[in-house]
Amino acid sequence: MVKRVGIVGASGFTGAELLRLCAAHPDLEVVAATGDTQAGTRAADLYPSLAAGYGDLVFEPFDDDLADRHALDLVFCGLPHGASQAIVPKLLAADRVVVDLGADFRLKDASLYPTWYGAAHTAPGLLADAVYGLPELFRDDLRSARLIATPGCYVTTATLALAPLLRAGLVEPTGIVVDAASGVSGAGRPPKPNTTFCAVDEDFSAYGLLTHRHTPEIEQNLTFAAGADVQVLFTPHLAPMNRGILATCYARPTAPISTDALRDALRSAYVDEPFVVVRDEPPSTKATLGSNTAHVTAYADERTGWVVALAALDNLTKGASGGAVQSANLALGLDETAGLPIVGLYP
Amino acid sequence: MVKRVGIVGASGFTGAELLRLCAAHPDLEVVAATGDTQAGTRAADLYPSLAAGYGDLVFEPFDDDLADRHALDLVFCGLPHGASQAIVPKLLAADRVVVDLGADFRLKDASLYPTWYGAAHTAPGLLADAVYGLPELFRDDLRSARLIATPGCYVTTATLALAPLLRAGLVEPTGIVVDAASGVSGAGRPPKPNTTFCAVDEDFSAYGLLTHRHTPEIEQNLTFAAGADVQVLFTPHLAPMNRGILATCYARPTAPISTDALRDALRSAYVDEPFVVVRDEPPSTKATLGSNTAHVTAYADERTGWVVALAALDNLTKGASGGAVQSANLALGLDETAGLPIVGLYP
Amino acid sequence: MVKRVGIVGASGFTGAELLRLCAAHPDLEVVAATGDTQAGTRAADLYPSLAAGYGDLVFEPFDDDLADRHALDLVFCGLPHGASQAIVPKLLAADRVVVDLGADFRLKDASLYPTWYGAAHTAPGLLADAVYGLPELFRDDLRSARLIATPGCYVTTATLALAPLLRAGLVEPTGIVVDAASGVSGAGRPPKPNTTFCAVDEDFSAYGLLTHRHTPEIEQNLTFAAGADVQVLFTPHLAPMNRGILATCYARPTAPISTDALRDALRSAYVDEPFVVVRDEPPSTKATLGSNTAHVTAYADERTGWVVALAALDNLTKGASGGAVQSANLALGLDETAGLPIVGLYP
Amino acid sequence: MVKRVGIVGASGFTGAELLRLCAAHPDLEVVAATGDTQAGTRAADLYPSLAAGYGDLVFEPFDDDLADRHALDLVFCGLPHGASQAIVPKLLAADRVVVDLGADFRLKDASLYPTWYGAAHTAPGLLADAVYGLPELFRDDLRSARLIATPGCYVTTATLALAPLLRAGLVEPTGIVVDAASGVSGAGRPPKPNTTFCAVDEDFSAYGLLTHRHTPEIEQNLTFAAGADVQVLFTPHLAPMNRGILATCYARPTAPISTDALRDALRSAYVDEPFVVVRDEPPSTKATLGSNTAHVTAYADERTGWVVALAALDNLTKGASGGAVQSANLALGLDETAGLPIVGLYP
Repeated sequence: MVKRVGIVGASGFTGAELLRLCAAHPDLEVVAATGDTQAGTRAADLYPSLAAGYGDLVFEPFDDDLADRHALDLVFCGLPHGASQAIVPKLLAADRVVVDLGADFRLKDASLYPTWYGAAHTAPGLLADAVYGLPELFRDDLRSARLIATPGCYVTTATLALAPLLRAGLVEPTGIVVDAASGVSGAGRPPKPNTTFCAVDEDFSAYGLLTHRHTPEIEQNLTFAAGADVQVLFTPHLAPMNRGILATCYARPTAPISTDALRDALRSAYVDEPFVVVRDEPPSTKATLGSNTAHVTAYADERTGWVVALAALDNLTKGASGGAVQSANLALGLDETAGLPIVGLYP
Repeated sequence: MVKRVGIVGASGFTGAELLRLCAAHPDLEVVAATGDTQAGTRAADLYPSLAAGYGDLVFEPFDDDLADRHALDLVFCGLPHGASQAIVPKLLAADRVVVDLGADFRLKDASLYPTWYGAAHTAPGLLADAVYGLPELFRDDLRSARLIATPGCYVTTATLALAPLLRAGLVEPTGIVVDAASGVSGAGRPPKPNTTFCAVDEDFSAYGLLTHRHTPEIEQNLTFAAGADVQVLFTPHLAPMNRGILATCYARPTAPISTDALRDALRSAYVDEPFVVVRDEPPSTKATLGSNTAHVTAYADERTGWVVALAALDNLTKGASGGAVQSANLALGLDETAGLPIVGLYP
Repeated sequence: MVKRVGIVGASGFTGAELLRLCAAHPDLEVVAATGDTQAGTRAADLYPSLAAGYGDLVFEPFDDDLADRHALDLVFCGLPHGASQAIVPKLLAADRVVVDLGADFRLKDASLYPTWYGAAHTAPGLLADAVYGLPELFRDDLRSARLIATPGCYVTTATLALAPLLRAGLVEPTGIVVDAASGVSGAGRPPKPNTTFCAVDEDFSAYGLLTHRHTPEIEQNLTFAAGADVQVLFTPHLAPMNRGILATCYARPTAPISTDALRDALRSAYVDEPFVVVRDEPPSTKATLGSNTAHVTAYADERTGWVVALAALDNLTKGASGGAVQSANLALGLDETAGLPIVGLYP
Repeated sequence: MVKRVGIVGASGFTGAELLRLCAAHPDLEVVAATGDTQAGTRAADLYPSLAAGYGDLVFEPFDDDLADRHALDLVFCGLPHGASQAIVPKLLAADRVVVDLGADFRLKDASLYPTWYGAAHTAPGLLADAVYGLPELFRDDLRSARLIATPGCYVTTATLALAPLLRAGLVEPTGIVVDAASGVSGAGRPPKPNTTFCAVDEDFSAYGLLTHRHTPEIEQNLTFAAGADVQVLFTPHLAPMNRGILATCYARPTAPISTDALRDALRSAYVDEPFVVVRDEPPSTKATLGSNTAHVTAYADERTGWVVALAALDNLTKGASGGAVQSANLALGLDETAGLPIVGLYP
């Protein structure tokens, strides 16, 4: 039976991507989409790409009765950080899955929110219940989840590259550098001076140096994988492309190791994963465009004693909405891969 | 029952796009793919985007027994012009559909091949049997087709913009200008001096002026629609993007007409079409990215007495491989929309 | 002796381009730059590209005494349409050249302003005195000009392609189509929903259909060249690139003509022009990037009876600030080419 | 008196950039340009951007008498590695400056060539005489140089970011990571499968992992600056843009240090440099486009104990041809900044 889906905060890029994925999903049907600033606008007017699939869908304002009125089985929340924690408690119900795509339920330690997000959490009691939506780490928990916190896009990328190496004890938990580059869609839809075409095209630059909010989330995941405190320096860059994230991660081996041994560890970790490919060449963001697939690899440099682990994915698909659908599939008891492209556009 | 599919000439961009679409198609399974210059190469090594879906697929060389050996129900041919006419006769069989993506069976008048393609046709007897793979014009014929000639990408675009206006007698058949721009994937995979990144990025230029081979094919379609000889001047341009075609077409109205009346004619023509959207705003190639959907509109300019008709689509999907799958679906008796994205990526 | 230059409205892209050009100009020194919304901001903070050349320049607010206080020999005005006509009368002085880069003094017929710009002109008495800043048409007048109206970017492009053919009587003045594409910098610096990277990148679309404000200005120039009323349909497109305009223009020959004869007419017109190159290949915007050079060519199509004339240039250089400096050089009695790049970046 | 310039291997991108810069240089005039594979071709046909400045320049084949026949004061060599060492000895003369843009004279230790370039050096006696063309490190030596080895583009970038910190003893010489991204022009003009538009556009990926040839050259410079052996892991990436390099460098502080102290060290090092700007924001490649200016900055992260130093520049200007002209200016006794843009294009 097709599940009834609502999207709260559907007017952003992750909302548009959820609508794209749901249009091709055999078991999900979007019956409601809210977008407060766009309330009353046809989805197809804001995103002409949706015209053939959602000709009649109109963004509505959010209200507390939304989920019940539409008898929603599943709610995706694509709200700015801080906004979800106010709304999610109203959406939760025994027979409903809520998948949050924001930051509000990702960090388990409530004390980190004031530091990294500038305000105390208003629903800290839910943090323990929220399941972190990374099937490669938490698949079993996701099967019974009612509240899912979809990871940040950079976080999924860095985690997929490094977690198996840390779990296997192959690299040191300290001194890790995550140097990453993202396409511009990661900055969201609203126009800003630093995301105009003329600011970004033909430009490459770093931003958020030392202070990017995905830092504690990367550390949380890698600490979980390592079983020891992990600290990373995370440097994001903006690349002149729509989509895609590449993380190039540097770590110190715990003992001399070869490139082959590193890749064996990755292959062993991901052998049964439908959406992770271990490659022998450097991963390319373009090879993941529009798909829910991540590509990973690793290198050991004997000369300098560094391990380099790399991962690439589409920040809006595997790094956001696709990952959210994958987790939702698990929580709803559907085929984990239902509706999710494993092959992306090329070129 | 799933249909067994072969792709001859699968190593080009239309081949990669066919593999993408078939990976999500419920009724098609690719069991063979040839690529003479790439024979022995894993598809996923040439196109890493295919890695998660076609990990084991290896390009094989073509041989005459290919279709029988693999018991193919459907063969897509993505060969350079001239090459298909040598191979297609060997592929045809009573219980098999052959969908050619090249130019060899598009023009009905065999005498046009020497002029536009530089050589006489070697299988002219098949031209009458080949059904032109544009469902919006030839849906009924496609249902019983055994040989399908998929239109050129520019041709589909210009035809969708102009055919309804000509059929309804709203514009004159003479003096038409089709001014179009395409993304670079239309030029194919092999590296050429004029398709390197450094040649194309930040550039916009015209090419093939007066002599582009899609000209007679546009004229053939529009003559069919108009019921009178149509002559067009076609000017293609190269735009710095991967995919997408926009055609901006200029014609003279047969009598004073309004913008509304033009759009009414378009809406009337396309009301039941699953993959054509008539819009009130100028169509955008990006709104069609990765989907099989075309967007069209028209304007009447009282001041200068011109009609402007515009269409946008993804040259590799609706303009090539997606159109080919749509036609194949019809010929195989499947749901016409099976496996075809109606919503594209944004952004 | 170095001329003292002020730039009013310097915070936009044409202002930044003027600052770039003046930095390499042997005879011009920028001593004042205004930018009301950016007053107090260092130019190098808004445009880091200026850091090495203008480390100390701070945008100041405009005031009526600006030109006298700074003893300006030359004022460039880069204000939105409507704003220049209020300010220019205050800047004019016997010993000073004012070069307006906006639309306010381009159209000679005051009655056109309400139609195309939505308001009556407030200084119509200056329209007759203003010299249109296109040296290829009005070089002699520019030598004695005190007020110069720099053409619109599309207008310069279309005029350079068509004016010689019309002047020579080779094409008909009616039924002309100007189909053009521009890079995104033409839309200016302020962020807008339709000029974000994610809206533009990988997109090609038309805009301003039938109603773009450069239309009457193209007609004014071509009417001047033809000596007869010219009417054009102008269709601009937005291409995913920073800079560059290509105009592809369609006209009817007055008598059968060859491609060679068209190019002879262009070569004859431009033989002594330092910034116009007549080519035998389709012009490319990239070949003009960052230079003050325009490339033009033409084709005659016997089959359909159309003439196609094309021109390419950099919209911010030859199409705006470079053209403005060229005109200023003439008015100040300097070498017309001083400080202007004739060779652009490649790639 | 204007110096007579020859360019050997002028048909590549660094050659085109040298021609651009020389066209605006008051003291240099290009009188000969060789390009063996392009011999007989007009420079303006290969690079239409040169049409207005070099309408008559034709690439000629190289011969041993070239420099004498043309009475060259200055020869730029833009040949592939290995080719320069065969030709440069023939070009050297007491009254002539030879500026090599390739790798052949960059490494002082002849034993490194077999390891990193695959063959023994054939003119090792010249290595000691060659002056490394980085004025920020070797200005005095350049004033009397007859043979100049222009640095690799990545090398200039990384060196400008790190050398002052190493020289001041602020960071450790071991364990350094240089993570960098370059535009595609760094790969040169000839078409290759991995530099087509469709391979690069919308892609970001690493390449040359662990083995890029600029590694020993970065180490040579930084060892010179540190006065102690420096070892770096260098990871280049390819970004979808024409020009520009950003290096994000990670090093360990020798003692706890602040961001301010790092920037003070940079400012102190570069206070008199005409082409290096120290900024308080992350540098952007676009801010350097087409200019000879480099932007640098640094950050100290107390939390993780890392120092991050960043530099951006235009790989074809400051990173190649502009740096070469700067060095040539010094060697010829000209103004060091003559003919070199300090302000780049924006946008």
